Amino acid sequence: MIIDVHGHYTTAPSALETWRNRQVETFRAGKALLAAAELRIGDDELRESIEANQLRLMRERGIDVTIFSPRASFMAHHIGNFQVSSAWAAICNELCFRVSQLFPEHFVPAAMLPQSPGVDPSTCIPELVRCVEAYGHVAINLNPDPSGGRWDSPPLSDRHWYPIYEKMVEYDIPAMIHVSTSCNPAFHTTGAHYLNADTTAFMQCLTSDLFTHFPTLRFVIPHGGGAVPYHWGRFRGLAQELSKPLLTEHLLHNVFFDTCVYHQPGIDLLTRVIPVDNILFASEMIGAVRGVDPETGHHYDDTKRYVEAAHVDAADRRRIYETNARRVYPRLDRTLNERGR
Amino acid sequence: MIIDVHGHYTTAPSALETWRNRQVETFRAGKALLAAAELRIGDDELRESIEANQLRLMRERGIDVTIFSPRASFMAHHIGNFQVSSAWAAICNELCFRVSQLFPEHFVPAAMLPQSPGVDPSTCIPELVRCVEAYGHVAINLNPDPSGGRWDSPPLSDRHWYPIYEKMVEYDIPAMIHVSTSCNPAFHTTGAHYLNADTTAFMQCLTSDLFTHFPTLRFVIPHGGGAVPYHWGRFRGLAQELSKPLLTEHLLHNVFFDTCVYHQPGIDLLTRVIPVDNILFASEMIGAVRGVDPETGHHYDDTKRYVEAAHVDAADRRRIYETNARRVYPRLDRTLNERGR
Repeated sequence: MIIDVHGHYTTAPSALETWRNRQVETFRAGKALLAAAELRIGDDELRESIEANQLRLMRERGIDVTIFSPRASFMAHHIGNFQVSSAWAAICNELCFRVSQLFPEHFVPAAMLPQSPGVDPSTCIPELVRCVEAYGHVAINLNPDPSGGRWDSPPLSDRHWYPIYEKMVEYDIPAMIHVSTSCNPAFHTTGAHYLNADTTAFMQCLTSDLFTHFPTLRFVIPHGGGAVPYHWGRFRGLAQELSKPLLTEHLLHNVFFDTCVYHQPGIDLLTRVIPVDNILFASEMIGAVRGVDPETGHHYDDTKRYVEAAHVDAADRRRIYETNARRVYPRLDRTLNERGR
Repeated sequence: MIIDVHGHYTTAPSALETWRNRQVETFRAGKALLAAAELRIGDDELRESIEANQLRLMRERGIDVTIFSPRASFMAHHIGNFQVSSAWAAICNELCFRVSQLFPEHFVPAAMLPQSPGVDPSTCIPELVRCVEAYGHVAINLNPDPSGGRWDSPPLSDRHWYPIYEKMVEYDIPAMIHVSTSCNPAFHTTGAHYLNADTTAFMQCLTSDLFTHFPTLRFVIPHGGGAVPYHWGRFRGLAQELSKPLLTEHLLHNVFFDTCVYHQPGIDLLTRVIPVDNILFASEMIGAVRGVDPETGHHYDDTKRYVEAAHVDAADRRRIYETNARRVYPRLDRTLNERGR
């Protein structure tokens, strides 16, 4: 079985974006918050938006299951306030749940949180509980910079985030550390802000003892870990200067990297440098890079091709494709087991 | 000949740091600016600080010449105002010049600029002119985020920076794009802020047409280009989505990467992905990562070992070690030629 741990609902019917734009407009105009009931998307529309896009490509590429969360760039936690984020997160998470109900063989939901800059993350707990308990979401996406590029939240090692971590530990769910749109003109969203956030989050973990406090807490760093595997020697050396244990002990029981690296040399480096138990297959399809690579004739984000061509034996490839994901996402494993998979 | 294009004066006599601390204190106390004349460092002290450190390691490792600029983390452009930065840059640049006079066979100076947040970069021109004309500096370090982690300057493609570029073109000198200390607790200076800045700067170039306006402008992106070579497929794909030319045409006449990547797999990826004409040997020694790698028994920053072991033929290795640097830094080439090298 091949599990893609990093898929977003980037192809939702346009009514979703229309509703969001109206929500932002009414908020900015100081009017009453737009009701969720004003958005109506039928099951047929959902089916069509998935079948023609993600599911079509999953079938073409041989991907069985995708962990499916709301579109990352649309989370836009910097917009509005907690109430605005809360209504928006509830809608987006429900849509991912509905997709998982319509295609139970292929999609398992993960949740965005109703984060808002300067607001205590514990306010996100009710939505997290609802997603896990009522909807069967198996993970969350945690935004380390809800400001969208100002980076004014405390580091992930700060107690600020502990309420979220306590709930993650209780539910035994991992968090993908994933920022949203950059509203800082210095940072291109998918070309700089995403990769910077991955590197930043890893280093925040490295300088801290977060996983001593939360030994079962698990973070997935997307986009192949940003700059981290390429600079693995630098990070090993920095840990050494800071008198931290070896990274394998200090972080790799708790930190995992996905395979969203869009060329063969990148995946070759990832699989050469990072222990295989810490690599999770993913493509972020349909995402930031949708084109066909003229050098290969295949889609940049067809990451399965790179994993197939990497110097990895069959047993390790199965870890990357399936068993690591089932270990890091125990609720995914349980969902699959219940279905005899 | 082996030229290291990325060395900083991280081992300056402690009187320098003492002076700087006093300068900052007097500024914060609202007193008259501390005079440069209050700092006295003799030639013997300079000699000792170099011979026991950088020069010793250069001899051990077989590096002939280092392009030597002020300590990056000490630039701290966010401190004080333009006058504070100006006095500080003048002192640091003069020290690098003096080192180059004391060891003319081994050190060639490059300049920091007296940048200050919110201040027009054209104010840096007099110091730049002084360094090139009076001191023979062959390059500058340009900080794309003088705020130290708030990232509130316009992107490098903005006209804001054009006065610097016009002078660079006139003098035919490149800029290394190098941030300084992060004062944002989200970003560890050498583990996150430096690498993020490299990635950010590259993407600012990618989304723009800067090099159409300045076809001879040259940027060196340090630390192996941050996350860029590891994600080269992503960047090629993003350029394609933005209808930009192939990266080889769009950026690689003007953008170069150094080899400050502190493990073999990283250098292997760099030399596999980036055309050899765009790779410049460097170690940033003595810098952020000073330890010995227990996996190899050698210093992490002994990057020559990785370049020696990379799949690069002798002609290409000579490009990385010498001829690329002489092409990208024509004033270095001229200095070396004048000495018959």
